[in-house]
Amino acid sequence: MGKKCVGIDVGGTSVKIGIFETTGELLHKWEVGTRTEENGRYILDDVSASILETLKKLSLSLDEIKGIGMGVPGPVMPDGYVEVCVNLGWRDLYPGRELSSRLDGIPVLCGNDANVAALGEMWQGGGKGYEDIVMVTLGTGVGGGVILGEKIIAGKHGLAGEIGHIHIRDEETEHCNCGGVGCVEQIASATGIAREARRKMASTDIPSVLRQFGDDVTAKEVLDGAKAGDELAKSVIDIVGHYLGLTLAQITMVIDPEVFVIGGGVSKAGQYLIDEIFRHYDRFTPISKSKSKIVLATLGNDAGIYGAARLILD
Amino acid sequence: MGKKCVGIDVGGTSVKIGIFETTGELLHKWEVGTRTEENGRYILDDVSASILETLKKLSLSLDEIKGIGMGVPGPVMPDGYVEVCVNLGWRDLYPGRELSSRLDGIPVLCGNDANVAALGEMWQGGGKGYEDIVMVTLGTGVGGGVILGEKIIAGKHGLAGEIGHIHIRDEETEHCNCGGVGCVEQIASATGIAREARRKMASTDIPSVLRQFGDDVTAKEVLDGAKAGDELAKSVIDIVGHYLGLTLAQITMVIDPEVFVIGGGVSKAGQYLIDEIFRHYDRFTPISKSKSKIVLATLGNDAGIYGAARLILD
Repeated sequence: MGKKCVGIDVGGTSVKIGIFETTGELLHKWEVGTRTEENGRYILDDVSASILETLKKLSLSLDEIKGIGMGVPGPVMPDGYVEVCVNLGWRDLYPGRELSSRLDGIPVLCGNDANVAALGEMWQGGGKGYEDIVMVTLGTGVGGGVILGEKIIAGKHGLAGEIGHIHIRDEETEHCNCGGVGCVEQIASATGIAREARRKMASTDIPSVLRQFGDDVTAKEVLDGAKAGDELAKSVIDIVGHYLGLTLAQITMVIDPEVFVIGGGVSKAGQYLIDEIFRHYDRFTPISKSKSKIVLATLGNDAGIYGAARLILD
Repeated sequence: MGKKCVGIDVGGTSVKIGIFETTGELLHKWEVGTRTEENGRYILDDVSASILETLKKLSLSLDEIKGIGMGVPGPVMPDGYVEVCVNLGWRDLYPGRELSSRLDGIPVLCGNDANVAALGEMWQGGGKGYEDIVMVTLGTGVGGGVILGEKIIAGKHGLAGEIGHIHIRDEETEHCNCGGVGCVEQIASATGIAREARRKMASTDIPSVLRQFGDDVTAKEVLDGAKAGDELAKSVIDIVGHYLGLTLAQITMVIDPEVFVIGGGVSKAGQYLIDEIFRHYDRFTPISKSKSKIVLATLGNDAGIYGAARLILD
């Protein structure tokens, strides 16, 4: 029996944990709640206890585990140092060392959760079979991760893969959470898509199925409407596709990946969304007939545990 | 005596060649003309003959040379294959293998010239001491090169580092050479800066030292004028700084390098230009207080031979 590995995805509400074969097969996964009180000081105690308990339940011993990877919601320095994870209350710690010391010194490596999710999609998801991928996660915000040569590119200041905060729209006037104006996230996140729809409804008289929802319109309703042929919804998705296609074209001129993997809640719109993005991407890359592929993520919320487990396999 | 290495930079007019210590010291450099006739079939004969002759003159033997690197003006596949180098007439060849076969089978590695120049600036130029750099060359066009972990990132389709063809200006209507519209190169190259100045002169009545040059105004005159306080020239450089700063900010959100190295003829404007770029870069990266550095390239036209020599040292 080959060695196994463990992937941990630490979120603000729950910690997802998975046990994997080193070949990538997910054997068992579960969750524990995230205790954020007292600056999150109990989180790693809870995680280590839960891992030991689960291994016992599965009749596995710790020495059958090659190592543990952990994705955390904040920047992680190359030596594993975490200055701050706002959502967890963590400040000024080495979570990998901390967890390792609670588990007999087993190797533990940490990475930023968005980067780690990208690694997971490269390993066993939409980017399987590729070495160079860029993942773009379209959720409440827009996140990203860059993998080159099967390695996470974290950047000198932890900013690599911050696709959502590429400034893309000069005429925007509202501010983004990052302090900037005109970020990708302001257009292509779920909240961004809904806002674009509200703007379109307010600025035109075009009849639309979206008008029944008024200011409560959601990204899903916009995408469903566009797929059903609603003109106003289609015009909103055209804007979203334009800016996402342009963003991917810009990324291509920097690192030219083999494939872009699109994930997050918005990507549930499926191939329709991919086609819309590609149409614009193609337009913004006249320089080459050979194009990067654009595909859907396939691991959903499990991308983080897959990628975390993969961290330990280098 | 340690082994030496040779760097070759093949251009459309001349081939630059340098002999280096593996520690980075340039021992000797020279040039041979580029014979582009008959699809450039004599170029590698000329280069190999010149190298053998020069080694002899310097009382060096081929077995004191660890290997040879060569930068060529076109995309190079990971296996060394070159589909086309328009400026040389080359099509469908492996220039590294060809050169090696003319020089007793000595190891020869090839790379794209812009990428190789970036590697040279990392090794012994403005990016010395850094592992992750992005070079931006502001010349007749705008080129670039991305180095991560001391390695060239060439991209899946050879497009990595094509900084000049990032689409950056939506309101542009003229086409770029690449077939796109609104590329960085259309604004920040020497020709782009001159064009911006012509536009500004035509669209305003602002008095300016540039008006004496009329449509023959050059980028150098614009930069000199701006440094001397000429309002119109300053407004042109403000546009250039805006779009270059924005471009570097976008690159930061993808790979977050340690340093940007600015080279090419336009960079002769010196620290003034760097400060203008940084001012806008800072504005477009509110997400982080830690910023990548922006510095001047220092190797000038020798960056290519330095980088080519460095290619062979991995």
